[in-house]
Amino acid sequence: MAKSTQLIDNEVFRAFATYTAIVLLKMMLMSLITAYFRITRKAFVNPEDTEAFGKGESAKKFLRTDPDVERVRRGHLNDLENIVPFVGIGLLYALSGPELSTALLHFRIFTGARIFHTFAYLIPLPQPGRGLSWAVGYSVTFSMAYKVLKTAWLL
Amino acid sequence: MAKSTQLIDNEVFRAFATYTAIVLLKMMLMSLITAYFRITRKAFVNPEDTEAFGKGESAKKFLRTDPDVERVRRGHLNDLENIVPFVGIGLLYALSGPELSTALLHFRIFTGARIFHTFAYLIPLPQPGRGLSWAVGYSVTFSMAYKVLKTAWLL
Amino acid sequence: MAKSTQLIDNEVFRAFATYTAIVLLKMMLMSLITAYFRITRKAFVNPEDTEAFGKGESAKKFLRTDPDVERVRRGHLNDLENIVPFVGIGLLYALSGPELSTALLHFRIFTGARIFHTFAYLIPLPQPGRGLSWAVGYSVTFSMAYKVLKTAWLL
Repeated sequence: MAKSTQLIDNEVFRAFATYTAIVLLKMMLMSLITAYFRITRKAFVNPEDTEAFGKGESAKKFLRTDPDVERVRRGHLNDLENIVPFVGIGLLYALSGPELSTALLHFRIFTGARIFHTFAYLIPLPQPGRGLSWAVGYSVTFSMAYKVLKTAWLL
Repeated sequence: MAKSTQLIDNEVFRAFATYTAIVLLKMMLMSLITAYFRITRKAFVNPEDTEAFGKGESAKKFLRTDPDVERVRRGHLNDLENIVPFVGIGLLYALSGPELSTALLHFRIFTGARIFHTFAYLIPLPQPGRGLSWAVGYSVTFSMAYKVLKTAWLL
Repeated sequence: MAKSTQLIDNEVFRAFATYTAIVLLKMMLMSLITAYFRITRKAFVNPEDTEAFGKGESAKKFLRTDPDVERVRRGHLNDLENIVPFVGIGLLYALSGPELSTALLHFRIFTGARIFHTFAYLIPLPQPGRGLSWAVGYSVTFSMAYKVLKTAWLL
């Protein structure tokens, strides 16, 4: 087990592990928020999910879309579209030998931007709040990809 | 190539590689099931996909949604939402030096829960079968994230 | 930082890093294309996004779906469904000690297939162009998964 312990002893890798766990847990939280809104708004998509609320016709009225549920689901999909590239490119970036301070700057800004993005989406805040936080996270991932390609380039 | 060979020689990492390949292949299978239902139910979303079934107006009637197709697509999206955190956090977990038996327990329960979840979604089984299998997989990823943050924490 | 520098010095890993960064950047590009079509077609989904185009009733008419926007979004979701398994399985594959030439063949074909798939989806090209490019990328990931399971198998 020596090998893996060594990688996790690398400070940049530890920082990557910490921030990746945080943003992935934040993304997972969207599932719970979706479930919360589906249950409180009684808005489901699968017939078998409504059976606790009555049988037959009385249950069918809960098979509907709700604006709050759809909003959380859009936030969740946006997380997938942005956090997946962060995790993939961030892992390669962490292994490309960046300075710890530079790496921390990237990870911290991305994580802060995505947490702000979630609040901006769910409250919702007026634009361009959500748009800007999206752009900040996007730029951080782009900057890490530039470093990865500069270090690793082998086509 | 010595370095990479060494990492794959680590037993925890080998177990992670095995179960990750299995759950990602299971997720990829959802694409084939979607294609199967789209073709057998003749329910497409892109006009260019219906051309094999006739030209002009006669093809347009195949541009429609089908309950079975939509059900598989929801299962596929649920896989993305849950398997992406498992792969990302699981990789960090595998590198954080867990006991092999503990790691195997995590990987096996997650993989079993997601396979059961797919059957529960597609058959469909009555609730709370699908909900419980979702919660089991979610809890396993959460438990691995706790270990990662405890081992690697560097904010 | 010696450890991480060593992994990135491995040629197969460098090739994986290069192609992974390329396909993830390509996937991120879909967000910009979606934003471009949303703004030029004036087709939004969040009420707060339409406020730049007028207040009250005059803004509500921009809350609509547009076929071009939906097409890009389907391409983006298809990327997520296929590029996530490539990145996860590809990482394990790169660490399983393949020949550089074999690894490059896998990474190049997958990357070419996904770039072609995006053009085929957005232009759109007549089928089976898009379907075949999807199948080629799918098969490459499957082939890498086979190598991973053969090398790492520990259930």
